[in-house]
Order: sequence, then structure tokens, then C-alpha cells
Amino acid sequence: MDSDRIRQQFAFCLEMDQEKNIGRQTYLSDGARKENDAEHAWHMAVMTLILSEYANEEIDVLHTISMLLLHDVVEIDAGDTYAYDEEGKKTQRQRELAAADRLYGLLPPDQAEKMRALWDEFEACETPEARFAHTMDNIQPAMLNAAAGGKAWSEKGVHLSQILERNKNTANGSEALWNYSRENFIEPNVKNGQIKEG
Amino acid sequence: MDSDRIRQQFAFCLEMDQEKNIGRQTYLSDGARKENDAEHAWHMAVMTLILSEYANEEIDVLHTISMLLLHDVVEIDAGDTYAYDEEGKKTQRQRELAAADRLYGLLPPDQAEKMRALWDEFEACETPEARFAHTMDNIQPAMLNAAAGGKAWSEKGVHLSQILERNKNTANGSEALWNYSRENFIEPNVKNGQIKEG
Repeated sequence: MDSDRIRQQFAFCLEMDQEKNIGRQTYLSDGARKENDAEHAWHMAVMTLILSEYANEEIDVLHTISMLLLHDVVEIDAGDTYAYDEEGKKTQRQRELAAADRLYGLLPPDQAEKMRALWDEFEACETPEARFAHTMDNIQPAMLNAAAGGKAWSEKGVHLSQILERNKNTANGSEALWNYSRENFIEPNVKNGQIKEG
Repeated sequence: MDSDRIRQQFAFCLEMDQEKNIGRQTYLSDGARKENDAEHAWHMAVMTLILSEYANEEIDVLHTISMLLLHDVVEIDAGDTYAYDEEGKKTQRQRELAAADRLYGLLPPDQAEKMRALWDEFEACETPEARFAHTMDNIQPAMLNAAAGGKAWSEKGVHLSQILERNKNTANGSEALWNYSRENFIEPNVKNGQIKEG
């Protein structure tokens, strides 16, 4: 037993607890409160188990779920940057790179490299698994926002064009899921005015 | 595209959102609030990614994580039964079986069967993956309780014998992780009086 190794691993596992305190802008389906990063990652992992058959290309489910479970870890240091916060997005990359160095650096070197590679893969979005992970990252909040009556969209005054811009690659992971999201989550909220036209 | 199928799948995915409202008895590491089922499942999935090398027997990591992601789903209907609530435990099994029928029944039949089988496997605890999943289910709250200064144990007046009884199979999934938990999480809290002796 390498006692340094297991201590480093538990230090990382304990640090991960802080993801439960990183708030997101998405309300839970009952609209009572907003979700946090840990809940979001869990929900997407579950959805990947259930919906992976709709990936455009065949995906390795464990690889996709591993990517999703940890893709927001950098927000422990860098905070959550709201999808439509144009100012925050200017410094987002720099803040997140510093966070990745510190947080993945808690792990033993072999695991630090492996977990960091998963994050880099998610960010680059050039593999079938990363494309599907990004699809999940867009579909899951749309599903919750629609269930909560479109409140997250209307409170921020979000326009349809902003949603379409954010979702410009969602169909690259899964056309079927993007179509479902557009028809069932987005369009009804344009019709009822919770999402602004144009 | 089978539109009934995808609707059933999204109905299940949306229902899962409620796991975020099922409270547990474990405090987050900062002691500020208790965690919920979704956060707990996410944390164990992450820990399985990092700690699977310590399983006594080789495990299929995706299978183990799939089991852990959904093992508390029944609590959406049946509620969380605290590990040391002897009254609640008497009706726990019956409440959870009814919940499993309803909740997994939201899925298309093939997935309902597959996801229900994962829960049954977790409950039976007879495979290497189920044994490791149970180890996670005991190690993760011990790690958080210790980080929060033993508050969850002292508030409930928990005795060491109760913890050892609850953990009687933890070493079956991983001797190394049980030893680590005993030495680093449990024993220091017996010494400082947060866990009652005897």
C-alpha cells in the first residue's frame, strides 16, 4: 500500500465535496431553488445511461460519464460562468486553466494526467464522447427550465437567438435529442413568451 | 424514431430531478448543511473513478457507477431511512419495493428491467461490483462526517458498535478502503468523543 497515493486520492475526493456549493442558473423542475454543479453532473450521468442510444456516433458510455462527472470541477476555484454572461466569459478560460492545474494536481500524477485529459477532451469537443457530453450539458438544463415553466429564461430575458447560438453544436452529439429539446422544451417557451423572440 | 420510447425516457429523466430533494443525514465537509441523494450518488461515482484500484476483486467500473448513480432512486417515493433508525428500517423494504415498481416502470420495458436489475444487484450485494458499491456507500459519508468534525455522529449519539455493525461488510468490497476509513475517519472520532465508545 502506497500511503502517499491513497492520501492524495482522498484529498481530491474530499475537495470534490465543494462542487455541491457551486450554484448554477438552472432551477430544479419544481422551481423552488437552483441546482448546483454536483446535482447537474449527476443528472447528466443518469441521462447518459438512459439516452446514449441517441448519440449520432457510437459512444463509450463510461468514458462519456467520466467526462461529465468531472467536467465542472474547475468551477470550485473559477466559479460558474452563466451561459449568457458575456463579461464573465472573457476571463473564463484563464480562470479555469489555473483551477485545473491546482485541482487535478491534488491527485497522484497518473490520475491527474488522466482526469485532466478528460477535461481537455470535453473542452476541445472533437470526439464522439465529448460531442455527446456537450449535448447533455445543453439538454439537461433545457429540460429543467421547461419543467419549471421557463422561469430561468424569463428572469434573465433570454432571446431565442442566444439559445440557438449556445446550442449550435448540440445536434452534433445527437440530432434526435436536439430535435426533442427544440420541439418540447424550447419552442413551447417561445410561444408562451418565456423566451423572447429574435 | 419511436416517439413513445423517447417520451418515457425523458419522463424518467425528469422524475429523477426529485432525488435532489431527498435529504440525507450526512453534513457536507464544511458542516453548513446536509447533503441530498443526488449529491451523494455523484460523489460516490467520482470516488469510484478514483478509488476502483482498491477493490478486493476486479470490478467493471461502468457497472459499479451505474449501480451507484441510481441506487437511491426508490427514496423519491420511500424517503431516506437513516442508518440508525430502527423503527423506519422495519418498513423500509416494503416501501422501497413499491417505489421501485413505480419509478423504474416509467422507463421503456427493456430499460426498466435493466435498471431494476442494477438495484436488485445492489440490494443483494453478491457481486464484486455490488460489494464495492456498498463500500463506497459507507466510506463516503464517513469521510464527510470526519471532515465536518464528527457532528453527524455526535448529534445522533452514535456508538462505535453501531458503526461497526453498519460497516460489517465494508471490507468485503475493499479491505484497503475499510482500513483507511477506520484509521482516518472513525478512530480519531472515537478518541475525541464524537463517536461514543461501546
